[in-house]
Amino acid sequence: MKLNIALLAGDGIGPEVINEAVKVSDAIAKKFNHEITWTPALTGACAIDAVGVPYPDETHEICMAADAVLFGAIGHPKYDNDPTAKVRPEQGLLLMRKKLGLFANVRPTFTFPSLIDNSPLKRERIEGTDLVFLRELTGGIYFGEKGRKDDGETAYDTCTYTRAEVKRLAKKGFELAMTRSKKLCCVDKANVLETSRLWRETVQAMKKDYPEVEVSYEFVDAVAMRLVQWPNSYDVLITENLFGDILTDEASVISGSMGLMPSASVGEHTSLYEPIHGSYPQATGLNIANPLATILSAAMMFEDAFGLTEEAEAIRAVVNKSLEEGIVTEDLAAKGTKTYKTSEVGDWLVANL
Amino acid sequence: MKLNIALLAGDGIGPEVINEAVKVSDAIAKKFNHEITWTPALTGACAIDAVGVPYPDETHEICMAADAVLFGAIGHPKYDNDPTAKVRPEQGLLLMRKKLGLFANVRPTFTFPSLIDNSPLKRERIEGTDLVFLRELTGGIYFGEKGRKDDGETAYDTCTYTRAEVKRLAKKGFELAMTRSKKLCCVDKANVLETSRLWRETVQAMKKDYPEVEVSYEFVDAVAMRLVQWPNSYDVLITENLFGDILTDEASVISGSMGLMPSASVGEHTSLYEPIHGSYPQATGLNIANPLATILSAAMMFEDAFGLTEEAEAIRAVVNKSLEEGIVTEDLAAKGTKTYKTSEVGDWLVANL
Ligand SMILES: CC(C)[C@H](C(=O)O)[C@@H](O)C(=O)O
Ligand SMILES: CC(C)[C@H](C(=O)O)[C@@H](O)C(=O)O
Repeated sequence: MKLNIALLAGDGIGPEVINEAVKVSDAIAKKFNHEITWTPALTGACAIDAVGVPYPDETHEICMAADAVLFGAIGHPKYDNDPTAKVRPEQGLLLMRKKLGLFANVRPTFTFPSLIDNSPLKRERIEGTDLVFLRELTGGIYFGEKGRKDDGETAYDTCTYTRAEVKRLAKKGFELAMTRSKKLCCVDKANVLETSRLWRETVQAMKKDYPEVEVSYEFVDAVAMRLVQWPNSYDVLITENLFGDILTDEASVISGSMGLMPSASVGEHTSLYEPIHGSYPQATGLNIANPLATILSAAMMFEDAFGLTEEAEAIRAVVNKSLEEGIVTEDLAAKGTKTYKTSEVGDWLVANL
Repeated sequence: MKLNIALLAGDGIGPEVINEAVKVSDAIAKKFNHEITWTPALTGACAIDAVGVPYPDETHEICMAADAVLFGAIGHPKYDNDPTAKVRPEQGLLLMRKKLGLFANVRPTFTFPSLIDNSPLKRERIEGTDLVFLRELTGGIYFGEKGRKDDGETAYDTCTYTRAEVKRLAKKGFELAMTRSKKLCCVDKANVLETSRLWRETVQAMKKDYPEVEVSYEFVDAVAMRLVQWPNSYDVLITENLFGDILTDEASVISGSMGLMPSASVGEHTSLYEPIHGSYPQATGLNIANPLATILSAAMMFEDAFGLTEEAEAIRAVVNKSLEEGIVTEDLAAKGTKTYKTSEVGDWLVANL
C-alpha cells in the first residue's frame, strides 16, 4: 500500500518525537511491504518564524493532499507571556482544525500494567481504566463571536452549536460505543446552558437509532469528580469543545502515562494524529523526550486512517515490550535504573519489531 | 452577641444536616453566651411544591434581613430527568446568588490527617493540601444572554465579564492571599477566550497594589491536570464562574473528604454558608447523611460573618476529635467498625464541645 503522509513536526520536542515515529513507521512499512511518502510542512512557532503565520496555506495544501497527517506539538515560551500577541502558535492549531474540518478529537485514556504505579491515583482506583473521549473540536466558544464593548471594559465570548454539529459528533460517539461496551455518556451542563440543552435533546433523539447503546447524561462538574474517583466506570464520553479541553486533560494524568497517550482528530478531510502532550520547551534538543505517545499516535494512524490493524498491533506490542523491559526515557524510569535517550528508545523499537 | 440567621434547609438530606448544624451552633452559642435567632425559609424543590417558585420573595426578604444565611442543599430527582422543565430547583440557587449579590464563592479544600487514606490519590500526592478557590458566582456564561435561533436548530450562550466584576473578585483573591502564603493563581483560558484576556489583564494591573503577592497565570486545562498531580502546589486560586464550577468540584474529591467540605458565598449583602455536597436524595430521611460539612460551614459562618474565631475553632476542634475517635457516619467509617447516625454525630459533638 502507498501511504502519503503529511509530517508536521512543529515546535519544541516535536521534531525529536516525530523523528522516532517516522523511524518506527518506516520499519513497519518495510516489514509489511508498504511505501510511505512523508511530506514535511511547517506549523506553529517555527512557521511564524519562517513565514509569519502559524498555519501557512502551503501547509494546508499539503495536509489536504495527504492521506493522513502526523503532528508533533506546537508552542514556544516566547509567546506564552503575552496572550494578547497578535500572532500566536495556538492560532495555527485552531485554524488547522477549522480548515481541515477536524470536528472530532478522539482521546483515549488507558493504563499500561507496567506503569500503573506511576498514577497519582491509588492502584484500585485506576486499574482497568479504558475510556475514550470524543471532544467536539470546531465549534462552541472557541469559534463563536468574541470581542470587547464599552471601551474595552466589557468582554464577551459566544458559545454556539447547531443541531447538525452536535449530530455528527454524537453519531461518531454512538458508533464508537457500538464497537466497545455500548455505554455512552453525554457530558453537558444542561441545568444552566442552552447549548447543553440542545446537545442533550439531540442525543436523546438519536438514541432510538442505537437501541443497544445505554446512554447516560452527566453534568460536567460531576464528571470532573468521578474521573478522579472511579475513572474505570466510564467508557465512551462525548462532549463539547471547552468541556472536552478540560476533561480530556484531567483524564490524561490519571493514568500516570500522560507521556504515552495518543490522539486522533477526524472530520471532513484528512485525519490528524498527535500525542496529547505539549511542546515541552525546556527539553528541546536534549534528546530526552518520551517518543511513545507519538509512536502510539502513528499506530492509531495505521489502524484508523489506513485500516492496517496488524501493523498497529505490531507497534503497540513492541511498545509494551519496551515498557516491560524498562527501555524508557527518564520520565518513566524507576529511580536508580538506567534511562534511555529519545533516539535510543526509537532504535530499540525498530530493532525489536 | 445577638445572631440573626436565616435557615434554608432545602431538599433531600438538607433538613437533616441543617438540624445537626443548628444543634451544634446552639450549643456553642450557649457556651459563649450568644443568642441565635433562626428564621427558617423555603428554597428549592420544597419551595416549588409549596408556593410554585424555587426562591420565593419572602425567602429573599428573610435572607436580606438576616446577618447570615445557613443553607443545606437543593435538588430533587423529579426535576433531574427533564432539564428543560420550566421551573427547576437550580433556578432558585442562581436567583438567590444574583439577588443576594453573592459574587464570590469561597471553597477551601484541605485534608484531615485521620481521613487522608480515604483520598483516591496516593498519600504523598495529597498530604499537606490546603487550597482555596475563589469562584466568581454571579457573572459569566451562567447569566449571559442565551437562547435559540433558526427555528431552534441553533443554540447559544454568551459569556460576559466587565472589568469591575473581575476586579471585585480578584480583590478578594489578593486579600485572601495576603492572609495566607501570598501566592495567587489566576485560572483562565486566555489563549482562546476574550473574557479570559480581560481577566488576565485586570489581574496583571492590580498586581502592583499587592507587591508581596506572587501571581501565576495558568490555563484551566493545565489546572485540571495539576490538581490531580500536585494539589498541594496550590494555595489561593481565582477563576470565573464555569471554570470554578468544574474545578472546585474536581478539587473537592481529591481530599477524600468531600462530605466534610464547607463553603461560603459572599458579596454585596448577607453572606451564605453551605456544605458543598448536594441534596443526596437517595439518603433522604434515613438519618445517615454526614452532617460535618454543614457543621463546618456553620464554623465558617461564626468566624467570617460574626468575627467569632474562638467559637469557630471550638467547632473545628470537636469535629476533629469526632473523626479521631471514629464517631462518624457510614460514608467515613472504616470497614467493620461501628457507624453513627446523622443525629448521633450531632449529639456526640454537642456533648463533647
Ligand atoms: C492550545 C489550545 C488552544 C488547545 C485547546 O484549548 O484546544 C489545547 O489546550 C488542546 O487541548 O489542544
Ligand atoms: C446546580 C448548579 C446550577 C450549580 C452551579 O453550576 O453553580 C452547582 O453545580 C454548584 O456548583 O453550586
